[in-house]
Amino acid sequence: MSTTAAAGERVPVPRDRENDHTHEAARARLEFARERTGASLDHVSSYSFDPGVAAGNIEQFVGVAQVPIGLAGPLLVNGEEAQGEFYVPLATAEGTLVASYNRGMKLVREAGGVKTTIMDDRMQRAPAFLFESAREAREFGAWLDENFDEVKEAAEQTTRSGKLQDIEQYTASRILFCRFNYTTGDAAGQNLTGKATAAACAWIMSNYPGKIERFLLESNFATDKKSSQVNMLRTRGKRVVAEATIPGELFEKVMRSSSERLFQARQVSNLGGFMSGVNNNGAHSANGITAVFIATGQDVANVAESSAAFVFAELRPNGDYYYSVTIPSLIVATYGGGTGLPTQRECLEMLGCYGKGGVKKFAEIVAATVLCGELSLGSAIVAEEWVEAHDLLGRNR
Amino acid sequence: MSTTAAAGERVPVPRDRENDHTHEAARARLEFARERTGASLDHVSSYSFDPGVAAGNIEQFVGVAQVPIGLAGPLLVNGEEAQGEFYVPLATAEGTLVASYNRGMKLVREAGGVKTTIMDDRMQRAPAFLFESAREAREFGAWLDENFDEVKEAAEQTTRSGKLQDIEQYTASRILFCRFNYTTGDAAGQNLTGKATAAACAWIMSNYPGKIERFLLESNFATDKKSSQVNMLRTRGKRVVAEATIPGELFEKVMRSSSERLFQARQVSNLGGFMSGVNNNGAHSANGITAVFIATGQDVANVAESSAAFVFAELRPNGDYYYSVTIPSLIVATYGGGTGLPTQRECLEMLGCYGKGGVKKFAEIVAATVLCGELSLGSAIVAEEWVEAHDLLGRNR
Amino acid sequence: MSTTAAAGERVPVPRDRENDHTHEAARARLEFARERTGASLDHVSSYSFDPGVAAGNIEQFVGVAQVPIGLAGPLLVNGEEAQGEFYVPLATAEGTLVASYNRGMKLVREAGGVKTTIMDDRMQRAPAFLFESAREAREFGAWLDENFDEVKEAAEQTTRSGKLQDIEQYTASRILFCRFNYTTGDAAGQNLTGKATAAACAWIMSNYPGKIERFLLESNFATDKKSSQVNMLRTRGKRVVAEATIPGELFEKVMRSSSERLFQARQVSNLGGFMSGVNNNGAHSANGITAVFIATGQDVANVAESSAAFVFAELRPNGDYYYSVTIPSLIVATYGGGTGLPTQRECLEMLGCYGKGGVKKFAEIVAATVLCGELSLGSAIVAEEWVEAHDLLGRNR
Amino acid sequence: MSTTAAAGERVPVPRDRENDHTHEAARARLEFARERTGASLDHVSSYSFDPGVAAGNIEQFVGVAQVPIGLAGPLLVNGEEAQGEFYVPLATAEGTLVASYNRGMKLVREAGGVKTTIMDDRMQRAPAFLFESAREAREFGAWLDENFDEVKEAAEQTTRSGKLQDIEQYTASRILFCRFNYTTGDAAGQNLTGKATAAACAWIMSNYPGKIERFLLESNFATDKKSSQVNMLRTRGKRVVAEATIPGELFEKVMRSSSERLFQARQVSNLGGFMSGVNNNGAHSANGITAVFIATGQDVANVAESSAAFVFAELRPNGDYYYSVTIPSLIVATYGGGTGLPTQRECLEMLGCYGKGGVKKFAEIVAATVLCGELSLGSAIVAEEWVEAHDLLGRNR
Repeated sequence: MSTTAAAGERVPVPRDRENDHTHEAARARLEFARERTGASLDHVSSYSFDPGVAAGNIEQFVGVAQVPIGLAGPLLVNGEEAQGEFYVPLATAEGTLVASYNRGMKLVREAGGVKTTIMDDRMQRAPAFLFESAREAREFGAWLDENFDEVKEAAEQTTRSGKLQDIEQYTASRILFCRFNYTTGDAAGQNLTGKATAAACAWIMSNYPGKIERFLLESNFATDKKSSQVNMLRTRGKRVVAEATIPGELFEKVMRSSSERLFQARQVSNLGGFMSGVNNNGAHSANGITAVFIATGQDVANVAESSAAFVFAELRPNGDYYYSVTIPSLIVATYGGGTGLPTQRECLEMLGCYGKGGVKKFAEIVAATVLCGELSLGSAIVAEEWVEAHDLLGRNR
Repeated sequence: MSTTAAAGERVPVPRDRENDHTHEAARARLEFARERTGASLDHVSSYSFDPGVAAGNIEQFVGVAQVPIGLAGPLLVNGEEAQGEFYVPLATAEGTLVASYNRGMKLVREAGGVKTTIMDDRMQRAPAFLFESAREAREFGAWLDENFDEVKEAAEQTTRSGKLQDIEQYTASRILFCRFNYTTGDAAGQNLTGKATAAACAWIMSNYPGKIERFLLESNFATDKKSSQVNMLRTRGKRVVAEATIPGELFEKVMRSSSERLFQARQVSNLGGFMSGVNNNGAHSANGITAVFIATGQDVANVAESSAAFVFAELRPNGDYYYSVTIPSLIVATYGGGTGLPTQRECLEMLGCYGKGGVKKFAEIVAATVLCGELSLGSAIVAEEWVEAHDLLGRNR
Repeated sequence: MSTTAAAGERVPVPRDRENDHTHEAARARLEFARERTGASLDHVSSYSFDPGVAAGNIEQFVGVAQVPIGLAGPLLVNGEEAQGEFYVPLATAEGTLVASYNRGMKLVREAGGVKTTIMDDRMQRAPAFLFESAREAREFGAWLDENFDEVKEAAEQTTRSGKLQDIEQYTASRILFCRFNYTTGDAAGQNLTGKATAAACAWIMSNYPGKIERFLLESNFATDKKSSQVNMLRTRGKRVVAEATIPGELFEKVMRSSSERLFQARQVSNLGGFMSGVNNNGAHSANGITAVFIATGQDVANVAESSAAFVFAELRPNGDYYYSVTIPSLIVATYGGGTGLPTQRECLEMLGCYGKGGVKKFAEIVAATVLCGELSLGSAIVAEEWVEAHDLLGRNR
Repeated sequence: MSTTAAAGERVPVPRDRENDHTHEAARARLEFARERTGASLDHVSSYSFDPGVAAGNIEQFVGVAQVPIGLAGPLLVNGEEAQGEFYVPLATAEGTLVASYNRGMKLVREAGGVKTTIMDDRMQRAPAFLFESAREAREFGAWLDENFDEVKEAAEQTTRSGKLQDIEQYTASRILFCRFNYTTGDAAGQNLTGKATAAACAWIMSNYPGKIERFLLESNFATDKKSSQVNMLRTRGKRVVAEATIPGELFEKVMRSSSERLFQARQVSNLGGFMSGVNNNGAHSANGITAVFIATGQDVANVAESSAAFVFAELRPNGDYYYSVTIPSLIVATYGGGTGLPTQRECLEMLGCYGKGGVKKFAEIVAATVLCGELSLGSAIVAEEWVEAHDLLGRNR
């Protein structure tokens, strides 16, 4: 109950230095936590796997959060990798969310599904190099271009799946900020790019004939776990576009709204978003992304970046509504990280995406899911059903 | 396996229209999902609670995501509500994360703990009102100011805990964008502010003597689930500052770094962040926030907003390092939403924060946790131990 | 010719310490400049006024820049202060500019003119106050609210025309950033708000019972001479909206374009602007603003802020094009600064705006001018006449 | 006096269709303006050149704005092109400005001058191409890369000095936004890049084997005359860094401030700037840039972009103050545009920069000037002399 006096001895969380990912070690911490805090933790300690499977995912493991999963679908996707219908697991505690996405999926299916396209794919680490003055920074930049092949070789020696594509340079003051851009196979790639770039920097520090005053492996230019204009412009993870064209009458039939009203509301939202300085002129892509991320073992903190989006819609002369959402920094994996954990893997398997070769298909499904949620919430707002729906489905006190 | 032909009949996820939150309904969906997708879902279907408890949290419930929780601490907080030591449950699949926060907590405890202060508290809904021209928008704005008391009364009739504090006005074109700012007790308050603002708008539409062409209950000016400058400036949820002053020698002892090197790196990060257009000049607050959010039943999609931050640090003449992080839109609850779900409630109880009266204490603990993670990762970067640590702890293939 | 060795004695520009704003003093500098640089300066030294009139506008006066003025119009304005037709002096060296604005004015006049509305009016200075910790910053903020009347009195003792309207507070770390918002009569008001706020701060420093570690009279929160989201949201100078509804057929008749094509192009520009992180989703308001500013003696460096804009357009069902431009931080004066200089005053007189009582009228004329230029360039782009026009009118080598 | 009834016939500004750039044509307009507006225009009509020289710079010429020029200097520059001392003409009506820059130049000269470096050079036009869906946009992007040489050839046939360096691609929805980046010799290059890109687009439209639904020559991605993150990241015009290291004692001797206080204030400004969403974390670079731009015939509306800046400063252990300002989109010319007008050319000649080969030297001088102004105003703020100085020098009513 947080009453321990601060002045006392530090009482660390118990750890088994030999093997800390065992039932025993977990139980010892459970007892410790119960004793210290008075919480029962009966549910937290109910998990269906051996702690050993989480060895690379967690330290000081004590149990699990059980996050409810609802099934939405069928979601019809016309992607390059994802083709056909999917039932999408959404892990959330926000009432209405699954129902809303489900409703959007129904609408879009009737309109022929979501077309998805991956436009770009690049994960980065962004070291900064400091020099005596700007002039040396510029010289170094030229040298870096000339020696790209060697740098690439040094980087790639540390990884099987990471491939260094290019190094972008941005200068300010006596500093060169770089973005080392990689493709990373089916992994999200933050760790492998970190390791590869550290190796590349080590090579650079040894081989650059000039004087580098200092380098920092990260400098707020990859903006990991943060939203930034540079990532919205230059991509982080997958850049995915989801598109659909919805006949006007479908909005009236399925959504009790209309494409005209949606389009007018979109114009207001575009203006509001521009004036408010938002990173997403859409409605709530973070909802769908977060729910899929939790279910499938993604690094959920990447919602910070992955929630940025560009919505572009058109009211066609015949009343059709063309709607697209571009996610410029969708960070996903089907291999590594939390994707191999028991429930998470099952959820990826439900989508046919687990493991090697699944990541682009998965990215397309996420983007398609997002589009459905956008149309659903957008319609609810113009139909003034939004508050009502939350009142109906989202009350649980 | 997503092989269903799109052309066929839509096969919806099974639902029990009478009561869909039962073991039977969940099992029916489980079978459906297994059949359709081939996934075993043995772990997803292992949960320790009755589906009825999740009635307001999820639709089409099929099981749970089990997200590993690690225990970090003790975290020493000198807040106004949170005082003393806490063991913080972090739900994540990112290896190294718990260890890194734990290390930061150790450092900061030796330095006397984290001081936390809640600077502001306001949750909003942002309707837009459209008029014939800008002039009528301006007139309406004046009327709205004059009639604030009536609007407030209309809004508050729908809620016990929501209190309308003020209405901010922002004009562009023939549109008035408003921010209806509420305090919302221990709830995060997105739903109650939606409902209250809908009622307020209904009152306005009935009582405004002029002509309102149209209104939209939301207009991208509350930027729910999105990061925006307006929220960073004007607060969404809690605005919390966490501060600590760390003796220079502690960095050398505990972190193998130094306050001088950290401070220099901070300058580079500030510049990098400014140039990259990032919403957070710190390191990775999203990591800690997300992990606490998942563990404690917060609306995790709010990481989109809650991950914005302002870091301000100073190297004092004696080598001490003053470090602060300001979270301008931290959206938290200790009541409602997912906070009452079994594991989530237990985790809140572990912090002594569950239920009424806990939300400010909880906000302080989150902010304090963030600060520890910032110092830990910041140190790892300057000590060049960062990649190594991930290599050691974050491998799980 | 910049050949003076740096190592030598510093040779300052000659000054007459008694009265430096005389023909003699100017001539002495002219000779100095000719000798040092080899430039003839025959034109620079051709001016039609006594240097004494520029005493408060320039130091080390040597002559003038002669910037060509073209006359555009008639511009038909339906403002609250500006009503009727105006011939607008545009000082520029960019060929095509005057012709383009003139063409837009013709189009808009046929459509009934531009409606203009001033939505807000506030000039600010933004001191920052530093405290031991965030908590003291918050306490100070409460005190400042309570003592607003005294602060206002202290501020207003320094100025006749400045009135302190309110003080906005923004917190981060242990710092309170304030915006002291004033109305400033017909002056732009940067100096008077500086002086008034300095006096207010002096009063605060003397009277605050707590401890203020330090204050800074400016802290990058008024963003004088810089563009910022806070000014776009909260206004700096005048917030003006200009609106017009143009019959579709007029675009075809006058502009060889169409409202449909303009509207589609607008959608693309909105998206491009959002993704590029621009401070103005319109075309080129800076052109018209700068040209009027130079002609009329405004502080031209304020183009940095004044060039921000929000464009909002609608294609009406009948093909009409509703177009509006909102200038959120238009900084103008008809009194003080450069407005009393000879040519500048004449240009203000041409618009009937010189001196007391003219500033709102002037702001409306500027905004109306901007709108005409937007429609003209927008049309030229969709009609693909843009490059041609520049080729025809903008060649002067 | 703007009393003409709007309902009447349009009375256009008189023009001589044969040759409109003559004394007669100008006089006719002068009479017209006098008659219509009642303004004397005696000073506006006092200019020292033949209207014919302004043929490519202005339409409907009626006279000139006489903007006072003050001479600041000597400015000591250690650039690559600009080397030695310069006396800089500043055209402004803001009292104090010249004195303040002059003071900064004195300080910096004593410290050994300003080091300047041009980091990048690229002027762009940004066409957008629309396709049926995102997939076709991506295909087109690949084709564009493959056919760069042909596109370049088509572009460069229209210009002698413009060289197409590369084409950046940014995708969103079914649109490819491009940045065609050119070097443009001594011209600013907006017109030549427009013309060259139009030719390139014409070639593309003729030769692309797929279907391009539509293209727009500009799409808010070059953000001409507007400030944007993309230009701050990717450069528009010249990217210039100015640097100086000032001994601590000089601040005390010359500025009555200290490097410690300046550095602390800089930290606060960095935070304020980050929170306010400003495009420049420095003080007032727009002041110096605008004043030089007006004097030397630059396109002054480019202050919108050119006023963006990154300031990076360091307090060195010995008390020295390293200060740098990076101007990422400085748009300058020494040839074409207004540079050949009489007073403007003389001012460029004063700097030894007029005509071919001068543009980089000129860019360096501008950046060096900016740095001096930053240090001067920064010092005035911390010394609390700022308001006083304005009171002394900036009063002219």
